[in-house]
Amino acid sequence: MTRVAIYDTTLRDGSQGEGVNFSLQDKLLLTRKLDELGVDYIEGGYPLSNPKDFEYFQAVRDLPLRHAKVVAFGMTRRKNAPAETDTCLKALLDAHTPVVTIVGKTWDFHVTNVLGTTLDENVRMIADSVAFCRSQGREVFYDAEHFFDGYQANPEYALRTLRAAADAGASVVIPCDTNGGTMPERVAEVIAAARAAVPCAVGIHCHNDCDLAVANTLAAVRAGATQVQGTMNGIGERCGNVDLVSVIANLAVKYGRDVLVPGSLARLTEASRYVYEIANMNFRSGQPFVGASAFAHKGGMHTHAVAKDPTTYEHITPELVGNERRILVSELSGQSTILSKTTKYQLGSDKALMGKILTAVQDLEHAGYEFEAAEASFDLLVKKAAGLYRPWFERLAYRVNIEARADGVPVTEATVKLRIGGETQFEVSEGDGPVNALDAALRKALVPAYPNLAGVQLVDYKVRVVNPKEGTAARVRVVIESRDGTDVWGTVGVSENVVEASWLALVDSIEYKLFKDAEQGK
Amino acid sequence: MTRVAIYDTTLRDGSQGEGVNFSLQDKLLLTRKLDELGVDYIEGGYPLSNPKDFEYFQAVRDLPLRHAKVVAFGMTRRKNAPAETDTCLKALLDAHTPVVTIVGKTWDFHVTNVLGTTLDENVRMIADSVAFCRSQGREVFYDAEHFFDGYQANPEYALRTLRAAADAGASVVIPCDTNGGTMPERVAEVIAAARAAVPCAVGIHCHNDCDLAVANTLAAVRAGATQVQGTMNGIGERCGNVDLVSVIANLAVKYGRDVLVPGSLARLTEASRYVYEIANMNFRSGQPFVGASAFAHKGGMHTHAVAKDPTTYEHITPELVGNERRILVSELSGQSTILSKTTKYQLGSDKALMGKILTAVQDLEHAGYEFEAAEASFDLLVKKAAGLYRPWFERLAYRVNIEARADGVPVTEATVKLRIGGETQFEVSEGDGPVNALDAALRKALVPAYPNLAGVQLVDYKVRVVNPKEGTAARVRVVIESRDGTDVWGTVGVSENVVEASWLALVDSIEYKLFKDAEQGK
Repeated sequence: MTRVAIYDTTLRDGSQGEGVNFSLQDKLLLTRKLDELGVDYIEGGYPLSNPKDFEYFQAVRDLPLRHAKVVAFGMTRRKNAPAETDTCLKALLDAHTPVVTIVGKTWDFHVTNVLGTTLDENVRMIADSVAFCRSQGREVFYDAEHFFDGYQANPEYALRTLRAAADAGASVVIPCDTNGGTMPERVAEVIAAARAAVPCAVGIHCHNDCDLAVANTLAAVRAGATQVQGTMNGIGERCGNVDLVSVIANLAVKYGRDVLVPGSLARLTEASRYVYEIANMNFRSGQPFVGASAFAHKGGMHTHAVAKDPTTYEHITPELVGNERRILVSELSGQSTILSKTTKYQLGSDKALMGKILTAVQDLEHAGYEFEAAEASFDLLVKKAAGLYRPWFERLAYRVNIEARADGVPVTEATVKLRIGGETQFEVSEGDGPVNALDAALRKALVPAYPNLAGVQLVDYKVRVVNPKEGTAARVRVVIESRDGTDVWGTVGVSENVVEASWLALVDSIEYKLFKDAEQGK
Repeated sequence: MTRVAIYDTTLRDGSQGEGVNFSLQDKLLLTRKLDELGVDYIEGGYPLSNPKDFEYFQAVRDLPLRHAKVVAFGMTRRKNAPAETDTCLKALLDAHTPVVTIVGKTWDFHVTNVLGTTLDENVRMIADSVAFCRSQGREVFYDAEHFFDGYQANPEYALRTLRAAADAGASVVIPCDTNGGTMPERVAEVIAAARAAVPCAVGIHCHNDCDLAVANTLAAVRAGATQVQGTMNGIGERCGNVDLVSVIANLAVKYGRDVLVPGSLARLTEASRYVYEIANMNFRSGQPFVGASAFAHKGGMHTHAVAKDPTTYEHITPELVGNERRILVSELSGQSTILSKTTKYQLGSDKALMGKILTAVQDLEHAGYEFEAAEASFDLLVKKAAGLYRPWFERLAYRVNIEARADGVPVTEATVKLRIGGETQFEVSEGDGPVNALDAALRKALVPAYPNLAGVQLVDYKVRVVNPKEGTAARVRVVIESRDGTDVWGTVGVSENVVEASWLALVDSIEYKLFKDAEQGK
């Protein structure tokens, strides 16, 4: 079967997503990572649209890429003016990429009502623009905006625009489901019609407005499309572009198609998380194939079955896409869960110790703990049971005071008194709220002894009532997510007092970091 | 075309999701909301698995539902033992629901290697269990676990298990893609085979491990399935169940199928957000149909085109599913939502007032407020805008002090100084934590003037960081659920300080109660 070319537009269409904003440096880092993953084309940006994209195309020429080709994106020439003097096309060529992608209009209504020109002039705009870029030695891909809506409204005209691009020398024409409203069976039908109409290759570009972008892309490939456009993690405007992560995994694993470069499928999870990091977005734990929960098992029975044979509740081996199995520690699970969680400590044969850990987990769960999102706290628990724990400091006291007047935000102050080694540290700090103030005072006391703690950031903070029936007198569970340069870890604390619960989770986070660095010799 | 029945399993399969944990009260609130949305079946839980599910089935009988039927879920009888004395089936029947769903095994490998019984005994387990529940007057749905994997391995045996359920009296048999690994065209093929094999109706139950759950579910419906099982927002283990939100919207809008009760499609967005709130999960802004970004347009050309004609970049009218267009640059949002929320005040004709409310909501949402689960706070906001609000007391000051020693729970003390009428009330109280102490002091100061407040209970308390990127310095949103003898109401407060946010939500709760009683002449 023909190879399916992966065309990544994270840097261009992905950056249209709400809250997404890549710096020049971000774009260069992502280009390198996408090339390592083995995508075929990297659409770097729209050189006319902003100076950052222009600079990117200058800088990217110095980047040694092993496989991917960088692509510049632009529109057809303006109406009633020659291609040779068009500023957009000039910017496109000035990007000096081996490939350019030109986007044009397909939908008759859009041509006349939004673009405000005639159907014939639009066809000339497409043909002239493609031909001009070809004449300047570029390979040209043609993105047919709104192709599916256009084909619905006026199929003859829609196909005519595609033919214009192909006849002018485009090597691939790409029908775009710009509004994301098309159903999979219709995508297959329209792609077949497009293939019959042009001599060149046909691609597909989908958006996820109906939660069907992956299905639509696969349907197009089954109908003969050989280039797939999308973004990593499906970022992009509205509901996003198609998620290339899912498309790549399905094409490779489920359809046995040739994608990426050999051996790179196992880098998919790492690449997905890297993109989230650079985009400063949180991972989506339930993301298919690469999410932290994608191969996580919670129910006791499921856990039991997976221990017998993973195919009972896993459709593929997680390692295929660089992910891993996780057994969640929760109230629904039993001994088999704990066993599989502690394999890395090689305690397997020590029955007494296993029993001790199990009892500790059950007692804590009974008190309201949940270790699902707090693997670092679970780690400390195992260390304690196995006698591998040592305290890094001792709490002598803390105090938090919150004072409010008639209105406005109250003033919060925290003091923390610790013993570290032989020394007593007594520090005070203000904060936006009690937890923030406590965190600040705690670090102020600890950083002189443990400077690595300066590099820890709190990334998320969640509170839940454990027994809601008692209202504010109930216990609360605080889950904190922390990170340093390389890792993210979760810790948990439970108390009737939200400040104390936060303290417990903060202390676990700090101790986990100190153990982690010590084990790595940092 | 046949109506497609919507079978919601948010309360059961959804609660298997990582970090999902519903209290009894949560489950009852969700049941009411799902019924309002017009789903046909609500799977409430697995009565044998835990006492909370058992209590739910007792409590739900007092809930007046207008359309939905509550369903209890359980397994087939144990191997080599009669159905009549099976504890799981007994628990299932003791739930006293009109419908029960029984899950059984389809996959030969799973039967022999995990269940550890013979293929024949497994078929008897299915038949006996269905027949026994039928004999006790229940309608029975049969969930065929791992049907697609089972059909792949041994199609004759897989179909035989389905026929056993149908022959024993199941009214619907539901092939489940338990591992979520099946492709859409294969789903269609297997559903057609299942339909040919049984005389009863056929459903579909999909998981999203390949990012194809929605496509698979739609493919099954096109192949003749008439019951769709899934969860709101696709919560559930690993990558989640199929998202019913997307399925419902696609079936209704794209395929013109009869789903939900007439007129309720426009409640889809509200229902989706309500489920997120109750589950204490963040909304997914890019979620198809209902996400805040689903109809959001960034500035520039798209905005301009959408202003000319929304169909240029929108596949459907957002109002169809209760969502709304957002133009991101100007952050104009909400008018339709506000309109629909204020109908009970009959302010419809007062344009200036509507504008005032809209501005207030936008300002508060911008600051991190969400009114989805806090209609009491929204009510107060409308009262304030309409000049119908009067303060019941004035805050002069409060102070909270938390002191901890080396270990143990800290001591917490709160003082509250209020002006009520002409009097100053200055009270102090201890509590388990800052919010509890504050609540106690607040009531101590207020109850002499407003004795009805003694009957208010706080039933739930949730905290979430509004901007998780800033860790503990970020804003927190506190949602409090309160009740008296007759009602339950939600209020919200947002602040950088969790104690202040809690104060704001507590005050709203108290004021709502006082207005409510005054309006009812209590």
